[in-house]
Amino acid sequence: KIEEKGKVIIAGFGRFGNTAGRFLRANGVFPTVIDNDSDRVETLRKLGIKVYYGEPTRHDLLHAAGAEEAKIIIIALDIPEKVLEMVHTVKKHFPHAKILARAYDRADAYDLMDAGVDKVYRETLDTSLRMGADTLKHLGYRAYQTERMSHIFFNHDEENLKELAAHRKDKSEYLSAARQAIEELEEIIREDFKDTDVSRDAGWDSESLREEFGKF
Amino acid sequence: KIEEKGKVIIAGFGRFGNTAGRFLRANGVFPTVIDNDSDRVETLRKLGIKVYYGEPTRHDLLHAAGAEEAKIIIIALDIPEKVLEMVHTVKKHFPHAKILARAYDRADAYDLMDAGVDKVYRETLDTSLRMGADTLKHLGYRAYQTERMSHIFFNHDEENLKELAAHRKDKSEYLSAARQAIEELEEIIREDFKDTDVSRDAGWDSESLREEFGKF
Repeated sequence: KIEEKGKVIIAGFGRFGNTAGRFLRANGVFPTVIDNDSDRVETLRKLGIKVYYGEPTRHDLLHAAGAEEAKIIIIALDIPEKVLEMVHTVKKHFPHAKILARAYDRADAYDLMDAGVDKVYRETLDTSLRMGADTLKHLGYRAYQTERMSHIFFNHDEENLKELAAHRKDKSEYLSAARQAIEELEEIIREDFKDTDVSRDAGWDSESLREEFGKF
Repeated sequence: KIEEKGKVIIAGFGRFGNTAGRFLRANGVFPTVIDNDSDRVETLRKLGIKVYYGEPTRHDLLHAAGAEEAKIIIIALDIPEKVLEMVHTVKKHFPHAKILARAYDRADAYDLMDAGVDKVYRETLDTSLRMGADTLKHLGYRAYQTERMSHIFFNHDEENLKELAAHRKDKSEYLSAARQAIEELEEIIREDFKDTDVSRDAGWDSESLREEFGKF
């Protein structure tokens, strides 16, 4: 019955992969783990988790771990270059698998999107947004409204990432990486400064937004 | 009107602080930023953001930034030792302020809890959980149920952190940090292996849980 759901491979079982993996197990999905930390591998084996020891970027190891049958391959390594290397390996040798990949930041996310990753996860995005939402609540904003604004902001930020990714391709030859990061920070913040910003995605004008959310 | 809500200071405006800060601004809260990256500070100033340049761990800089009047101080620095150092400074000189702090991982979260931080945010927790939830959805699990399981798992994991924090204090003298990390990984995963785990927090038994969530 579990096999029917589809095979999942997780590469990297540190703080990131570990949480995703534990959540999957709690829901009856038992991923195959690949990790290059021998202590961790030993621990996981003792606990009865199916784990392969070695470099997850190697296609023969991926093959041994059953990548041919994998429906989803999660790349949760903590070194961006290794993530990208593994994306190329998976795309080449196991093109049927859907790739979900961990990104360090926005610039890293662009690289992974360019490499054809199905879904990119900027590793600190959700937690920092939760911190922002909690701050509003501590200031007296209502919980429900805060959650809603948080969802809108998140969707907007993901859209914005896709838009800037396209935009970036045109400019990337002209700008050094550092200069690009700063230009992007400017661009992102300018975007967020338009006070219709959050409202736009929800199809509200500023006035109705203020009516709905302004009475904190 | 904005001042009534209370002053917020954000120390560190990299990938983490930046997201929290942009979300606050989008909701009408304009935090004062402290950052030690001169390029970033220049950019933020050009954009009209109130920003102080220097080491956020220094109490005179915090004082200049108005920490006396701050209701909430967000510590979003990326070096755990600096975060901890700043917690001590804030606790000593500005004890009235609520501290929300970024943690690298579980071990770092324990240290911050011990130091008296009001709320600790393990920086990759929420995003890795979202990745796990998306994986379930790709496998055909229903969106609503997946979201719900995700909330339950999150609450459970935060509770579990608090429990192990207490437990850890008793043992920490006996164990080296590395050994402790492995023992904890074992402990956390063993906890999550009990199939009543997710159900327990919601007050369900495994059977009713299976009834409710088992028909994916």
